[in-house]
Amino acid sequence: MNATAARTEATGKVSIIMFSGTADKFIPLGVLAQAAAAMGIQVNIFVTGFALRGFTKTHQDLPFPAEFAAMAPALEKGMQAAHVASWDAMLRQAKELDAKVYACSMMAGVMGLKKEDFSDLIDDVVGAATFLQQSENGQTLFI
Amino acid sequence: MNATAARTEATGKVSIIMFSGTADKFIPLGVLAQAAAAMGIQVNIFVTGFALRGFTKTHQDLPFPAEFAAMAPALEKGMQAAHVASWDAMLRQAKELDAKVYACSMMAGVMGLKKEDFSDLIDDVVGAATFLQQSENGQTLFI
Amino acid sequence: MNATAARTEATGKVSIIMFSGTADKFIPLGVLAQAAAAMGIQVNIFVTGFALRGFTKTHQDLPFPAEFAAMAPALEKGMQAAHVASWDAMLRQAKELDAKVYACSMMAGVMGLKKEDFSDLIDDVVGAATFLQQSENGQTLFI
Repeated sequence: MNATAARTEATGKVSIIMFSGTADKFIPLGVLAQAAAAMGIQVNIFVTGFALRGFTKTHQDLPFPAEFAAMAPALEKGMQAAHVASWDAMLRQAKELDAKVYACSMMAGVMGLKKEDFSDLIDDVVGAATFLQQSENGQTLFI
Repeated sequence: MNATAARTEATGKVSIIMFSGTADKFIPLGVLAQAAAAMGIQVNIFVTGFALRGFTKTHQDLPFPAEFAAMAPALEKGMQAAHVASWDAMLRQAKELDAKVYACSMMAGVMGLKKEDFSDLIDDVVGAATFLQQSENGQTLFI
Repeated sequence: MNATAARTEATGKVSIIMFSGTADKFIPLGVLAQAAAAMGIQVNIFVTGFALRGFTKTHQDLPFPAEFAAMAPALEKGMQAAHVASWDAMLRQAKELDAKVYACSMMAGVMGLKKEDFSDLIDDVVGAATFLQQSENGQTLFI
């Protein structure tokens, strides 16, 4: 693979089911969405489960995974030193390149969240069947 | 996307490697399997690792993720209020629509589980190579 | 499916984004990589996040998931009794069958890891865009 090939526009589709609610998992969400969208890949994200907590207007606190809690300060420092953008900044870049972000209607209901409770990162609230249909004939990741 | 398109039968294949053993992850397993099967998508599930504990006849207790343990009672209440079916009820619906559920032979051996130890949710005990072959030319999720 | 079909060479491609850093998740990494490579499937692995800790020369300790810590001794005993190879032995077998393992350049930078800090399991240090391009038209798992 060379740099020229790397600049070629892609034609694929990547769908991400974002379920995990610990802070660390939002980094690959942002990186993958931003990198794929920049390559011309269509990105659809379906937010469900504990991950919905990262998409409310009230910015609920995202816990660090229990097993790696001691590493949190060093990692945060490393992110700043490496000038890595925050996950939501990366997601906004992906959205400017036409990535779509949906909240799961069922889990929103279970958690008592209405459409107006979500931040502007959420494009719409939809059901799992709608998302599965959008993700057909592409790759789907479960984070 | 409109309602008519949403009713169109799908032709794809979704394979799920179910590894995680915390209670929360069984909800997306049930929802995705049920929704995909209802759309006419072929669903194959390969249960391995800690997730095998959810498929034994003795109903081993599934722990809540450490980081969100405090949210468990509210979520359970929300599931009941929203009339969300249990994960195994959703899986049974998927199985009536021809979804298949396999236990991983290697991890069953490691955990000392024999075919007769599994509930009737498990169709067969197979190896990873068999599952990989079944999942070819489709999408595969790792939960 | 019969044994003859099972021996047929596959033509697919499986890409794995290895993010999780708990010890248990390295078993499916090894099993899936080894089984897929043995079937003739092209395997690309992109190691990022906490999983990078398993690929350094200094063999950093991989914690067991908090919820299942009490099960660790029994599982280790079961692995030995069932003669299951270690995850890195399985990964080496996969690499002999042409599987490739890459470290994520961004997260390596965040964690202060240089190319020479990684064990010989790592073939190269690359960015997310390079990996996404390699994984096109195949299946991708996020572990």
